[in-house]
Amino acid sequence: MTTPTLLVLDADPLPRLGALAGRVRVEHTDEAHLAERLPAADVLLVWDFASHAVRGAWPGGGPRPRWVHTASAGVDHLLCPELAASDTVVTNARGIFDRPIAEYVAALVLAFAKDLPRTLELQRERSWRHRESRTVAGTRAVVVGSGPIGRAIAGTLTALGVRTALTGRTPRPGVHGPEELDRLLARADWVIAAAPLTESTHGMFDARRFGVMQPSAHFVNVGRGGLVVEDALAEALRRRWIAGAALDVFEEEPLSPDSPLWDLPGLVVSPHMSGDTVGWRDELGAQFVQLYELWEAGEPLPNVVDKQRGYVPGH
Amino acid sequence: MTTPTLLVLDADPLPRLGALAGRVRVEHTDEAHLAERLPAADVLLVWDFASHAVRGAWPGGGPRPRWVHTASAGVDHLLCPELAASDTVVTNARGIFDRPIAEYVAALVLAFAKDLPRTLELQRERSWRHRESRTVAGTRAVVVGSGPIGRAIAGTLTALGVRTALTGRTPRPGVHGPEELDRLLARADWVIAAAPLTESTHGMFDARRFGVMQPSAHFVNVGRGGLVVEDALAEALRRRWIAGAALDVFEEEPLSPDSPLWDLPGLVVSPHMSGDTVGWRDELGAQFVQLYELWEAGEPLPNVVDKQRGYVPGH
Repeated sequence: MTTPTLLVLDADPLPRLGALAGRVRVEHTDEAHLAERLPAADVLLVWDFASHAVRGAWPGGGPRPRWVHTASAGVDHLLCPELAASDTVVTNARGIFDRPIAEYVAALVLAFAKDLPRTLELQRERSWRHRESRTVAGTRAVVVGSGPIGRAIAGTLTALGVRTALTGRTPRPGVHGPEELDRLLARADWVIAAAPLTESTHGMFDARRFGVMQPSAHFVNVGRGGLVVEDALAEALRRRWIAGAALDVFEEEPLSPDSPLWDLPGLVVSPHMSGDTVGWRDELGAQFVQLYELWEAGEPLPNVVDKQRGYVPGH
Repeated sequence: MTTPTLLVLDADPLPRLGALAGRVRVEHTDEAHLAERLPAADVLLVWDFASHAVRGAWPGGGPRPRWVHTASAGVDHLLCPELAASDTVVTNARGIFDRPIAEYVAALVLAFAKDLPRTLELQRERSWRHRESRTVAGTRAVVVGSGPIGRAIAGTLTALGVRTALTGRTPRPGVHGPEELDRLLARADWVIAAAPLTESTHGMFDARRFGVMQPSAHFVNVGRGGLVVEDALAEALRRRWIAGAALDVFEEEPLSPDSPLWDLPGLVVSPHMSGDTVGWRDELGAQFVQLYELWEAGEPLPNVVDKQRGYVPGH
């Protein structure tokens, strides 16, 4: 048996891979050389999860990796029709980001409720201005996306006393279907987008949906930028259709310094960092090693993406 | 039986008092006229909880209110030796602020963990700078103060997965005594001050105690300004003995525009608002009416302050 070739599309150092020394031939590539190297690889590790290069470089036919793993929860940056049609297995980093993102969402919800951004502004002005804030216990949230991240968000908000509804593509116990979304949005204090970016979720937060929300509602996107029609959100904030929003993900990342989003009233902009807590790269590396060892042994892999739906189907 | 006189030291409108119409003669006073009016009052309602005027105005002997209620959790602003020695009953607003303050503390802890103040700074600079943040689950907190507010804080942090120790004056199941404080401070990620201001807590957070804390620790004060030696905290932040702090209460309130605290690195300054959520005045008014009806009927009052200790003894 020949030593398999692991091709790594990377930008940053990759910890923990030394555990596979001698069992795999590791080759590193950048985006520019990806296409020419893909045919010779048995496994592709998309460590540079911000890259969309796989979509352009994936071979239409002929030799190709049998397995692609991405160090991210979302797989929208690599799925293309050719990859979806092939028998190549795609896995993701399911599980690593759940709790960090849930905490990040809780941080934003509480910051909005307690008017923390305004407090920091007033502090810069050395201005003592008492305001009343809101209690989050008893308020209502809708979390759009019922995968592990959405469920972790719902769990954390529920622990804070927020009455939280979860919506997903497939209604099931504890998860509302898409046809209930507008009704839930209309009475939510907090709307959290944590869905995978797929054909059916692309642009789902548009002018109509922001129009349905309460003027006191806040919107938070920790999913993918493409879930939101950014112009529609900007307009909704300017017209005060909703009270505020926080975006951690954007249609184009990094967000251009010229973007009007940076100083939109009521909008908190953060640089796609919600899931990235100290040690995350280490955890991602360890997770890949674990999956590799299963693959090497011919065992079934966890976290297998349904390439038609664009995510790992859940429970 | 004559109609009792209720003297209200107020600054803001007082909702719900209409419920007592016809059963009590309500007189309003400001700080300047408090001393002359106190002897004729049966009950004093300290609605202006920021006022320290009761301490100076309390009659040494002779006629005086039989009951004093303050629309606050802390009673440090009204207890004086003469009031403490008298048979006048003092009650407080125990219960109203517990959950709002607990949420406020959670907001600050999460904001620090997720580096939210820095995110807002970078947003103003239109600067996309990804950072790793911290997971709060699994970190350690010490909450100093084991009354209802401290317990609510501990409950909320525990719900977020934070390993939380509670300390108080009297050790009991679930509450560590003062002699364990330094040991707990030395390994805490979050130190929360939520104790009443009394002789034994005054200035307890001094240079030595900040020196005991970890360089990665954050300190939050939602109790009373006098718990903290402000110069010592400033020095601890400048020397990076601790990573950050948030003060909602100060030795002098409002904080002077000249105070060096406003732009101390790593310090979040807020205007004594942690417990004040929409509807709070209404709740305080309703709570007083409820207590008044018990008093009127000769029933025992809840929330009775131990005037020697300076707080309502707990469970």
